[in-house]
Amino acid sequence: MKDMLGREGVMTSEKALELLLGNLAEKKTKKRAVRIGESLGMVCAEDIVAAEDLPAFARSTVDGYAVRAEDTFGATETMPAYLTLSREIFMGEPADFILPDDTAAKIPTGGMLPGLADAVVMFEHVQVIDGRMLEVMKAVAPGENVIQAGADLKCNEVVVSRGHRMRPADIGASAGLGVTEVMVFGRPVVSIISTGDEIVPPEQRPSLGQIRDTNSYVIAGMVTEAGGVPIRKGIFRDDYTVIRDAVEDAMKDSDAIAVSGGTSVGTKDMIARIIEDIGNPGILFHGLSLKPGKPMIGGVMNSIPVFGLPGHPAAVSVCLDIFMRPILNALCGFEERRADKLKGVVLARLSRNVSSSQGREEHIRAVLEEREDGLWAVPLLGKSGLIRTLVHADGIFVIPVNVNGIEKGETVEVRLS
Amino acid sequence: MKDMLGREGVMTSEKALELLLGNLAEKKTKKRAVRIGESLGMVCAEDIVAAEDLPAFARSTVDGYAVRAEDTFGATETMPAYLTLSREIFMGEPADFILPDDTAAKIPTGGMLPGLADAVVMFEHVQVIDGRMLEVMKAVAPGENVIQAGADLKCNEVVVSRGHRMRPADIGASAGLGVTEVMVFGRPVVSIISTGDEIVPPEQRPSLGQIRDTNSYVIAGMVTEAGGVPIRKGIFRDDYTVIRDAVEDAMKDSDAIAVSGGTSVGTKDMIARIIEDIGNPGILFHGLSLKPGKPMIGGVMNSIPVFGLPGHPAAVSVCLDIFMRPILNALCGFEERRADKLKGVVLARLSRNVSSSQGREEHIRAVLEEREDGLWAVPLLGKSGLIRTLVHADGIFVIPVNVNGIEKGETVEVRLS
Repeated sequence: MKDMLGREGVMTSEKALELLLGNLAEKKTKKRAVRIGESLGMVCAEDIVAAEDLPAFARSTVDGYAVRAEDTFGATETMPAYLTLSREIFMGEPADFILPDDTAAKIPTGGMLPGLADAVVMFEHVQVIDGRMLEVMKAVAPGENVIQAGADLKCNEVVVSRGHRMRPADIGASAGLGVTEVMVFGRPVVSIISTGDEIVPPEQRPSLGQIRDTNSYVIAGMVTEAGGVPIRKGIFRDDYTVIRDAVEDAMKDSDAIAVSGGTSVGTKDMIARIIEDIGNPGILFHGLSLKPGKPMIGGVMNSIPVFGLPGHPAAVSVCLDIFMRPILNALCGFEERRADKLKGVVLARLSRNVSSSQGREEHIRAVLEEREDGLWAVPLLGKSGLIRTLVHADGIFVIPVNVNGIEKGETVEVRLS
Repeated sequence: MKDMLGREGVMTSEKALELLLGNLAEKKTKKRAVRIGESLGMVCAEDIVAAEDLPAFARSTVDGYAVRAEDTFGATETMPAYLTLSREIFMGEPADFILPDDTAAKIPTGGMLPGLADAVVMFEHVQVIDGRMLEVMKAVAPGENVIQAGADLKCNEVVVSRGHRMRPADIGASAGLGVTEVMVFGRPVVSIISTGDEIVPPEQRPSLGQIRDTNSYVIAGMVTEAGGVPIRKGIFRDDYTVIRDAVEDAMKDSDAIAVSGGTSVGTKDMIARIIEDIGNPGILFHGLSLKPGKPMIGGVMNSIPVFGLPGHPAAVSVCLDIFMRPILNALCGFEERRADKLKGVVLARLSRNVSSSQGREEHIRAVLEEREDGLWAVPLLGKSGLIRTLVHADGIFVIPVNVNGIEKGETVEVRLS
């Protein structure tokens, strides 16, 4: 089978993604500074480095009495050590004195240890006599109940690396180090161009033969979930000049472009021609060994990735699942960790045999069922264009390109939607 | 062991959560209408119901020729059926004519079938002779290559149920049905009150004995991730009147309140006293069989849940992990599906023995390692207050309250952070 450019065969989605990523090379979104409190989910563009030790001073981890540990050695309930209560340390105040030997200072959790104090005895192991003399009934080792200065983070230590997506703990750690702003890669802007003479916006009552725009809303939602900023540019007539103008206009302010629609052969060809005519380099693949999603077109124009998406919402969402997240990750420098890749994937056993054609990667929606013997994936089979299937599904599993089908009871990875 | 109110024992986190949820009863955030394009992640407050059939008319799922199926019966490559090409159907135009028998109409994918046409023959199974006569080389069954009117969604069918969180497909389906606005529950507003005489904001250089605010940033991030809107109210002195005023002020515009800090016994008691004094009903639990997070306080004041959180960031995040998401879900009416609960949880084998005290639920951070034989969780052991552990961890696993430990090689559920 030849594609519209006369090339033999269709490409695997894996190869297609590789081609797209290869053509984006070192392309990244602009760096910008954001306040640390607004950085959740953003990708670090520069390492965040500790400019000081954390904590900056030795702190107690309990409520008790700061002591020189050696003064408590050998102390037991029957043979307590006797220390004089020297003074009290308050939260937030410097303990800038030397603790005399055979004395103790009352200290709250988080309080600063005075000079030469190296351990804290918990309240419950101390009896206070006359408010002045302490019976210490348990020995403490040096360092016991204390976080040393720099024990948490050392000055010049990298706390959050470039390419990491900021999580609540990363933000907290940065704030704790006095980092008030962080350099991040901007969220990639993805323009969505809807085409199709039959498409009307949701607020319009379609005449016979027309349908309302579904795809641009599905795409916008998936772009947001993948960390991008969607811009719905509107619905454009199936006309070379009209769509080309829309694409060239979108290239001015977009990091990626998704062209939706073009279900008919004529429109698909037109979108392919526009991408090829703008070029540099233009189309990278046209047609995939993928179901649904076979007619997908992918290309790069002046370092801007462009997706020509099939007309059915189910196919659109499969194509975006495969391509949008890795491409947006590449654009904003996000280096996924193993844990990031695992988020949103669960293992379940297939509830029935599902066949597939060899040479085609098939994405099948499923509902999850918790049964007595574990989690099962019940495939939703039927016409691929149906929205009902999308709405009812819990996720999607994949039958790989070189496999004929999966048998009942086998384990599949379900990507949750 | 007695808690500060003189009650025996400490509560399990499960019982504590049950108590909190029980006291919130039917409390929900205000409903409001949002444009469908802005509804991603919001929780539906009313069912979204199809007001019409989707599709509104029978559509072709391929590029080809609309026919009366019976006119093709028996057609093969060697014995084709001959049909007259009557006319062409264009995208977006009504096909408001009756297809005469023994004729066919050219139709694009998505095009509307004319009256009495009930199937579509794909281009590749047709030879056109003289541009007028068609040789149909394959019979089609009635309904073949057609989506019937209402086949996707029927008028009055519930598309998205109340309590469901809007995903891209739900938004697309709604748009396709002409739904332009959707009633959602507002995101719960969570006020964060930082207390502690030793706490200074990140932009301030701490004097000796002071530390910068970490917790309010960790809390804000986790509130956002749990679907809420955090408001950092600021840092307040360890003073009954000051903190009580801050809490009462926050009650005016919050759906929930998190009070952070109070690591020292005195402050913890003060926060407990404030919650109890505001009352209605006040404190529900004080102290949990939980590590880290034992000193946590939970209560409800005039239907507003309040969390008195421990001072260490690691403990704060464990407490929020357990309580924040279910409470915010309850407040905004989100009915988690099995798939929602599974998101962000992976199974991994434990890389070493980990012991725990019976009677205490222990939450331990871990790094995930992909080895040849699968996924392993490597526990990060050490002092619980350390930020480094939070930043380096991929997630957390739990040793349940009635278990003494978990052995190397056993499978644990790691909640990804």
